[in-house]
Amino acid sequence: VLCCQIETRTGETNATGHIDHTVIPAWFEQARTPIYRLFNPELSFANWNTVIKKIEVDYVSQIYYGRRTEVRSTIAEIRNTSFTIRQELWQDDKLTASGRVILVHFDYQAGQKTPIPPSIRSRLQTLMP
Amino acid sequence: VLCCQIETRTGETNATGHIDHTVIPAWFEQARTPIYRLFNPELSFANWNTVIKKIEVDYVSQIYYGRRTEVRSTIAEIRNTSFTIRQELWQDDKLTASGRVILVHFDYQAGQKTPIPPSIRSRLQTLMP
Amino acid sequence: VLCCQIETRTGETNATGHIDHTVIPAWFEQARTPIYRLFNPELSFANWNTVIKKIEVDYVSQIYYGRRTEVRSTIAEIRNTSFTIRQELWQDDKLTASGRVILVHFDYQAGQKTPIPPSIRSRLQTLMP
Amino acid sequence: VLCCQIETRTGETNATGHIDHTVIPAWFEQARTPIYRLFNPELSFANWNTVIKKIEVDYVSQIYYGRRTEVRSTIAEIRNTSFTIRQELWQDDKLTASGRVILVHFDYQAGQKTPIPPSIRSRLQTLMP
Repeated sequence: VLCCQIETRTGETNATGHIDHTVIPAWFEQARTPIYRLFNPELSFANWNTVIKKIEVDYVSQIYYGRRTEVRSTIAEIRNTSFTIRQELWQDDKLTASGRVILVHFDYQAGQKTPIPPSIRSRLQTLMP
Repeated sequence: VLCCQIETRTGETNATGHIDHTVIPAWFEQARTPIYRLFNPELSFANWNTVIKKIEVDYVSQIYYGRRTEVRSTIAEIRNTSFTIRQELWQDDKLTASGRVILVHFDYQAGQKTPIPPSIRSRLQTLMP
Repeated sequence: VLCCQIETRTGETNATGHIDHTVIPAWFEQARTPIYRLFNPELSFANWNTVIKKIEVDYVSQIYYGRRTEVRSTIAEIRNTSFTIRQELWQDDKLTASGRVILVHFDYQAGQKTPIPPSIRSRLQTLMP
Repeated sequence: VLCCQIETRTGETNATGHIDHTVIPAWFEQARTPIYRLFNPELSFANWNTVIKKIEVDYVSQIYYGRRTEVRSTIAEIRNTSFTIRQELWQDDKLTASGRVILVHFDYQAGQKTPIPPSIRSRLQTLMP
């Protein structure tokens, strides 16, 4: 399991008093940094080589500002050119949201999706539950 | 179909040159304002009575800054206490993303979900395809 | 005076019930689009040629979600390579914030600031109060 | 000096390849958390008792995604009901932005500004350079 601590921000709350639902995809994105690094060790935008195909977020319970906040990510599935990450948001040991994102390995020069190399595939496999 | 024009912002792009994927849930939220108004005509936060249960976004093609941008929303399903909105993002007559959101009618005082009143239900039905 | 209507977003509020102060610089940026267009008619990022040198925002009174919101911009000063825009935020005919931004005309290829061309200068002058 | 490490996010970049200028006020806000805690130890929104009166940001050099990023805050001035924080943004030991924010101690119940209590004042003084 890949764990990422999140520092909540006051501006991420909304007038109902909780974290705005649109913030969770950004926290999940931040938690995927080590996975992007597998594909692009320098995190160079010029060499970016993954594309987000789909996101899903289930909101389980209220999400609060100022709590100990952690995103836990695992790899749910690996296909030829794409893979699925399952992500959970935990606050003070309570599950508050979960989601999935499908990422495609993409060759921007060729303009097409491309198989996930074996070396990356085996690294992703270590993150399967 | 409920249509909402979006004004793209430079800060919504990212270093790959396109609109960041985390922005689309915020655009979809903005496009739901008329639907929130059915439940809460003054859009008063003190009387907010819907909860987002789940969002899904499929990214279909690149989303650009500065293009004519429209979100088109329809009601996909109405259940007893919840309903599903299908939303599409169009730029210059091209579908660039689509999504679904499940909203629950919620009584914050009682702390529980509550049936959608018939008057709102019939208004939602006019937005079914 | 250059006027720009802003559509407030629920996610721009924070838990104190008002628009978060960090949102105002983004609204002011959006209101500067016609000014950026003078320098870069296609708003092409590859040809972007202004740099933000400084921003200032004075928060005058509470800023609310859902109100009729307008940013009014005028040119306060034009120098050789830079100019200052004064911006005001109005909600329902009340001034809620004001600010200034200093922009520098920049040649990214040469990596240095460069004089504002006379044709743009004269367009900017029409926006002086 | 109060130091706060910032985790940069991909969505905080823009299409010019750098961090969008509107993000810096949010980073500076995050870095002020320990100062808000002096006024409101639980960071409770119901008891929030400071108001942002003014912000200023000077952009000194390009701000990049993925670099070691730190905000350094000191107290520049303490008056009867308000005080000024000076903040600097450092990336890899280079100053990339600096700013000032004026905060007012505010009694929301009475609807007016109120003197900074001596106990908080002396804590703020320890952050003066």
